[in-house]
Amino acid sequence: MNDEQLRAVAAAVKIDRVMGRIRELAAQAPSGQGGVTRLPFSPQETKGMETVAGWMEEAGLTVAYDALGDMYGSTDGNRSGAPVLMAASHLDSVPNGGAYDGILGVVGAIEAMEAMRAAGAQPGVALEIAVWRAEEASVFSQGRLGSVYFTGQVRLETIRSWDRPGLGVAEDLERMAARPQRAPGRTVRGYLELHIEQGRRLEEAGIPIGVVTGIPGAIRWRIELKGRPDHSGATPMGSRRDALAAAAELILEMERAGLDEREYNTVATVAAVRVTPGAWNVVPGWAELRTDVRGTDVESVERVLERVRQKGAQMEAERGVAFSYEETTRGKPVKLDAATTDRIEATAELLGLRNLRMPSGAGHDAQTVAPYCPAGMVFIPSVGGVSHCPEEESRPEDIRAGIQLLAATWASLA
Amino acid sequence: MNDEQLRAVAAAVKIDRVMGRIRELAAQAPSGQGGVTRLPFSPQETKGMETVAGWMEEAGLTVAYDALGDMYGSTDGNRSGAPVLMAASHLDSVPNGGAYDGILGVVGAIEAMEAMRAAGAQPGVALEIAVWRAEEASVFSQGRLGSVYFTGQVRLETIRSWDRPGLGVAEDLERMAARPQRAPGRTVRGYLELHIEQGRRLEEAGIPIGVVTGIPGAIRWRIELKGRPDHSGATPMGSRRDALAAAAELILEMERAGLDEREYNTVATVAAVRVTPGAWNVVPGWAELRTDVRGTDVESVERVLERVRQKGAQMEAERGVAFSYEETTRGKPVKLDAATTDRIEATAELLGLRNLRMPSGAGHDAQTVAPYCPAGMVFIPSVGGVSHCPEEESRPEDIRAGIQLLAATWASLA
Repeated sequence: MNDEQLRAVAAAVKIDRVMGRIRELAAQAPSGQGGVTRLPFSPQETKGMETVAGWMEEAGLTVAYDALGDMYGSTDGNRSGAPVLMAASHLDSVPNGGAYDGILGVVGAIEAMEAMRAAGAQPGVALEIAVWRAEEASVFSQGRLGSVYFTGQVRLETIRSWDRPGLGVAEDLERMAARPQRAPGRTVRGYLELHIEQGRRLEEAGIPIGVVTGIPGAIRWRIELKGRPDHSGATPMGSRRDALAAAAELILEMERAGLDEREYNTVATVAAVRVTPGAWNVVPGWAELRTDVRGTDVESVERVLERVRQKGAQMEAERGVAFSYEETTRGKPVKLDAATTDRIEATAELLGLRNLRMPSGAGHDAQTVAPYCPAGMVFIPSVGGVSHCPEEESRPEDIRAGIQLLAATWASLA
Repeated sequence: MNDEQLRAVAAAVKIDRVMGRIRELAAQAPSGQGGVTRLPFSPQETKGMETVAGWMEEAGLTVAYDALGDMYGSTDGNRSGAPVLMAASHLDSVPNGGAYDGILGVVGAIEAMEAMRAAGAQPGVALEIAVWRAEEASVFSQGRLGSVYFTGQVRLETIRSWDRPGLGVAEDLERMAARPQRAPGRTVRGYLELHIEQGRRLEEAGIPIGVVTGIPGAIRWRIELKGRPDHSGATPMGSRRDALAAAAELILEMERAGLDEREYNTVATVAAVRVTPGAWNVVPGWAELRTDVRGTDVESVERVLERVRQKGAQMEAERGVAFSYEETTRGKPVKLDAATTDRIEATAELLGLRNLRMPSGAGHDAQTVAPYCPAGMVFIPSVGGVSHCPEEESRPEDIRAGIQLLAATWASLA
């Protein structure tokens, strides 16, 4: 496709339709606290999938599923063995999350498809949209389940074994097996994902487009601290083995370690804490922390983890509080495909969109797919850099720019 | 009663019966984690009350109740208007607590009664054992409910209004109203309470008896910290408003403030913490702490609280994390009756029991009763100073000494 045609594709993007669809999906899954709660395998996710299936059919796509319930919409009627160029994202959210995370990539891919059709673009290869399930680690400690399953890295039986009362995974998988299945043997020739940045770099630079170069892997620890429960009134300050005070030292050490590694864009978070017994009159004897460390620089990440281990050993020595941890997740940092990244950048230049090469802060399905096919990602700014909360927002003009770039790059690759 | 008679009362204490009863009560309410869970208003508390009622009847006492379910055993057949000398404690425990807290005072008072009977002591005034309910603040943030109700400081309707599904307070109170009620108009001429120390002072001094001079009041705060939930991967370290990191600073400040006030025996504890959303991939936007500060020196306690307030203000200024607190309890420190304390000390000397005057660390029912009648308390050592946990223990020889002192003091006052 020549430059003129690519510009026509971009010009055909209808931002009002996009914003309407983003609002419609948000209204389907209110959190009750101002945000969106669309948890993996919930009725809200199913409802969102059905709505999106309708939009894909409107755009002329044939809708199919895999056994996990990932949803696919293809331009060639779901043909066995035919290769595809894929654009994808997810619908699920964290608890009380925002309206754009994941949603933008799904609604944007459908709009890109509509724009190509409106501009009369004739792709030389089948196009396919994938809507991954369970990207957020909101219900299971493992995130990106849909794309992980798609790339054959987890078995359905394993996911089924994580089911628990009230989650309904087993019933959901039964429903999914009854739906039209995606045709076998379709190789993915290329993969594009449009997403909100979820950080502040683009906004601070005043630039509408981020061309993503790589994605950090999250390393998650469940840390346990075992002290001694004591009567909080009768136990002198110097004779305590307070698991929560030791936890507090670890929380602050983790934060300091992250701050010290800022130049490498490494981030360190204690996301959750529990103590027992948690009664007003007992010194906490046990505490659990859930931590998440990420970065694209492996050595920087290791330095943070080593400082946490050292602080843990110090808690044992100084406070008599035993430290142990279990690594529940170790994601590897992933480099995105250089040719695809170049193509995204060149297309942005063609469309006159100011852009910036940058690593991702968050994890994305693209990192799961990247080892299996050439993958690229486009970021647009998040207002205030906030995400995973009700205040998550992106401006319509940035959303339009992102979808224009997705559409034109996709058309260019096809 | 002369010295010889008091020594005979002390000599009649049967430690084997006492240890058997302590074990029997512990076996009735296993926590499943090695300790005892006998929560207020639970079936385990009811069962314990029934067992103790049987022992009181065996000791020749008449058993009656008040409308809250506090249980009384009197030597005079529960006579209206007749004054009594009371010994008392409680049966309920914290979750996964120990076998001695409260229990010792109840079993010890019954044994003291048996010892007086065996020694042929003829008290000049009626004696009464009270078994208070809900001493621990394990279910409600207010502890010592039984003695607080007994002294007319809370209405039954108020306690009933705290009921919640699964607690069964309303049903329990209905059952209690159907039991024989304690006769009206009985003034309490004196009050004695035997208890484990729940600290390390007696053990470290190698002394079996603590003569308690006063009891601190607990000041409890529910602290709220409001930051901003952010994506944990995409939000740079410098741009966060992490409510949990702010909470960690408060936890450590509270500990340091307590340590700095050690010479005043003030203690400061963060007993519980919660965060939201608590998902692996979100920086905590909200945190709650439950804190407990105690001491008999009011100014020392205020210094600790002021440091917490200042640190809270600092969190607002430095971290953009809003700090607020609600004071759920403000207990006043209580001095025990000087004449009763002197009598306990003199009786210990008479029995040849080494003893130490000391303030209590924990709160006790005696502090509720002390403003209404002359009250005194006896402590015995806790092994390792630990309490409110499965490892809570007191040695049989110390238990015997404590009960001997209780029995002889009670007989001497009568």
